[in-house]
Amino acid sequence: MIEKLSEEARALALANLPEWTVVAEPDGISRRFTFPDFVAAFGFMTRVAIVAEKADHHPEWSNVYNRLDMLLTTHDAGGLSQRDIDLAQEVEALL
Amino acid sequence: MIEKLSEEARALALANLPEWTVVAEPDGISRRFTFPDFVAAFGFMTRVAIVAEKADHHPEWSNVYNRLDMLLTTHDAGGLSQRDIDLAQEVEALL
Repeated sequence: MIEKLSEEARALALANLPEWTVVAEPDGISRRFTFPDFVAAFGFMTRVAIVAEKADHHPEWSNVYNRLDMLLTTHDAGGLSQRDIDLAQEVEALL
Repeated sequence: MIEKLSEEARALALANLPEWTVVAEPDGISRRFTFPDFVAAFGFMTRVAIVAEKADHHPEWSNVYNRLDMLLTTHDAGGLSQRDIDLAQEVEALL
């Protein structure tokens, strides 16, 4: 069973993800990405989709043309978990 | 310049898209799709992405695991246009 991060672990992890914003409902982290156009945005989504499927942990995301909003939360944990942090770091590495 | 559909043209078009719901803000049509899993959902999104790019008309959409919510509207027209109807029909054909 995956657990929510402690306040201490969360603070430590988020210090390494300065582009991500903490959201309250659901408890998680989000980031907005902007690309030159739709093909670039959807191409990035495709790369994230493969990484997410491999991790068996998927983003909640929405796309409008060149814009992508991504929210990471762990339903099974009731909030932000290490799985979200790991996926956020993988997403950052894809940029 | 693409224009919003007249009430008559809109009613006629929507009669052929029974799975789609009219939304008010922005003026457009939406549909929720549910798939067996994430790979199926994202695979479908990829097919729609290619069709949308070819049409140079893109959906506003969000995905959470196996669920996909799609909204079609035409910003340049200030609401529902023939381009949305055409894309909705292409999306239906992909199912």
